[in-house]
Amino acid sequence: MKFKPLHDRVLIEVLNSSEKTAGGIIIPDTAQEKPQEGKVIAVGGGAKTEDGKLIPMDVKVGDKVLFGKWSGTEIKIDSKEYSIMKESDIMGISGK
Amino acid sequence: MKFKPLHDRVLIEVLNSSEKTAGGIIIPDTAQEKPQEGKVIAVGGGAKTEDGKLIPMDVKVGDKVLFGKWSGTEIKIDSKEYSIMKESDIMGISGK
Amino acid sequence: MKFKPLHDRVLIEVLNSSEKTAGGIIIPDTAQEKPQEGKVIAVGGGAKTEDGKLIPMDVKVGDKVLFGKWSGTEIKIDSKEYSIMKESDIMGISGK
Amino acid sequence: MKFKPLHDRVLIEVLNSSEKTAGGIIIPDTAQEKPQEGKVIAVGGGAKTEDGKLIPMDVKVGDKVLFGKWSGTEIKIDSKEYSIMKESDIMGISGK
Amino acid sequence: MKFKPLHDRVLIEVLNSSEKTAGGIIIPDTAQEKPQEGKVIAVGGGAKTEDGKLIPMDVKVGDKVLFGKWSGTEIKIDSKEYSIMKESDIMGISGK
Amino acid sequence: MKFKPLHDRVLIEVLNSSEKTAGGIIIPDTAQEKPQEGKVIAVGGGAKTEDGKLIPMDVKVGDKVLFGKWSGTEIKIDSKEYSIMKESDIMGISGK
Amino acid sequence: MKFKPLHDRVLIEVLNSSEKTAGGIIIPDTAQEKPQEGKVIAVGGGAKTEDGKLIPMDVKVGDKVLFGKWSGTEIKIDSKEYSIMKESDIMGISGK
Repeated sequence: MKFKPLHDRVLIEVLNSSEKTAGGIIIPDTAQEKPQEGKVIAVGGGAKTEDGKLIPMDVKVGDKVLFGKWSGTEIKIDSKEYSIMKESDIMGISGK
Repeated sequence: MKFKPLHDRVLIEVLNSSEKTAGGIIIPDTAQEKPQEGKVIAVGGGAKTEDGKLIPMDVKVGDKVLFGKWSGTEIKIDSKEYSIMKESDIMGISGK
Repeated sequence: MKFKPLHDRVLIEVLNSSEKTAGGIIIPDTAQEKPQEGKVIAVGGGAKTEDGKLIPMDVKVGDKVLFGKWSGTEIKIDSKEYSIMKESDIMGISGK
Repeated sequence: MKFKPLHDRVLIEVLNSSEKTAGGIIIPDTAQEKPQEGKVIAVGGGAKTEDGKLIPMDVKVGDKVLFGKWSGTEIKIDSKEYSIMKESDIMGISGK
Repeated sequence: MKFKPLHDRVLIEVLNSSEKTAGGIIIPDTAQEKPQEGKVIAVGGGAKTEDGKLIPMDVKVGDKVLFGKWSGTEIKIDSKEYSIMKESDIMGISGK
Repeated sequence: MKFKPLHDRVLIEVLNSSEKTAGGIIIPDTAQEKPQEGKVIAVGGGAKTEDGKLIPMDVKVGDKVLFGKWSGTEIKIDSKEYSIMKESDIMGISGK
Repeated sequence: MKFKPLHDRVLIEVLNSSEKTAGGIIIPDTAQEKPQEGKVIAVGGGAKTEDGKLIPMDVKVGDKVLFGKWSGTEIKIDSKEYSIMKESDIMGISGK
């Protein structure tokens, strides 16, 4: 797939429950903002500083990450679910 | 066409479903913010820093891009649909 | 006319449909934010940076421009309609 | 009168219709934000930068200016109407 | 009295109508934000810049000032009314 | 007690009326934002600048301070009331 | 557990009442924003400055901390409750 996120955006494939990390993260139904797990498919070149320099990204293609359900924009490619969001919307790396 | 976007704005021709990229991006009806595909027709000179310098644009004329349905301002020229938006409203480049 | 806009403001004469550019820009009725066309009549000296320096303006007297219907402040001088707005509210230059 | 505006504030005497500039600016009733004309009576020393330096003011005592009806704070001195506002709320200089 | 305002705050004694300046400022009942007059009793050391330096205050103890009725926090000391506010909430100096 | 506030936060013991300063500050019932008096019990290391440097705190352990009733977060330790807030929420020092 | 928070985020294990610090912090039911106690399990690499440098974190793995009940995002791992939040949402360190 050839989608190239702009700036500090990340393309994430949303993982179904059956694909979740071995660590066994469970999202309680009572959580205010439900986090989701996903796999990083593509990353942008990085945010730009005031002077136009690039700040390198911290997540890499292949990382499993936690992100808020309402953070990104959902798209479907070949019947798989993806989400495009800014790196700052990613809470952390839950596996590789 | 001679429209010249100001600063970090981009003029995008909105693509109909039949013109979409081979990659086959599908926007689910349940998506909160429906992304759309389009082709970049003209780009501004770039955003200005605090000191008045220009930050070069990342998208180029001819790029196919994904953007949020509600981001830009719609205009019609010769019965074609266009949208004018800031580059930061573009999520990524989906093809050339 | 002697009106001198302050800082990064621009005085624009609103164009009626019959005066529109040859390019034939049409604003769809369904557009969320209806853009309008106008002619630049006067420009301010430029926005000031944190250090009090001036950033030169990109639009010039005589430019035809597109702007959002709700952006500026409307005034009438000698029964002509004008709008005063910041340059950043102008979407682009549609002709000379 | 001895009122001294602080920082980038300006004291403006509100002009009645009969005192308006020869240019004949008319404010349409349908305007969203009704601009008003006034005469600058006193100006502050200028806004302060992050480092505490002063940025000189662009309007001068005696200038006739256009400003938004809802921008400043109204006071009355000796039965004349005045308005105190920041210079950035002034749209432009309509005469001397 | 020993109250010491922090940073760019000012302690102001609210003046009753009978104590108002000779200049005779009148606040119209129709004013959106009613300004009040007061006397500066104590001033803070000044706001801090990003680097931790102090920006000196422009008002001095003893100045009579105009400020918005809703700007500060009211306290009473020995049955006198005071207001604590930031210097940027003061509109100007109306007398000494 | 070993609670250590982070950054520019302050731990304040809320004072009851009987413990108030000799100066006799009275909070009127009609005040919009009721200020309260308290004693500083612990202070953080200071806010961080953009470059990661620390800006030293202005209040010290033992200072009596005025603060807004709704500013901090209330906790109870051994049946005493405390409030944790940022130094910028403290209006001034009312005693030692 | 291998969860790695991004940037200035912290992973906190929420403590039940029986696990609380000896100091005996009690949260009153009337508190507007109920603080909670927790133990720091993992910390990110630090926030990034405008220039892309890292600002080191102040909390360390093992610290007991107070934080607002509504600040972070709740997750469950192996039936334990955790919360992911930014360090700036942590009010202070209540024990080790």
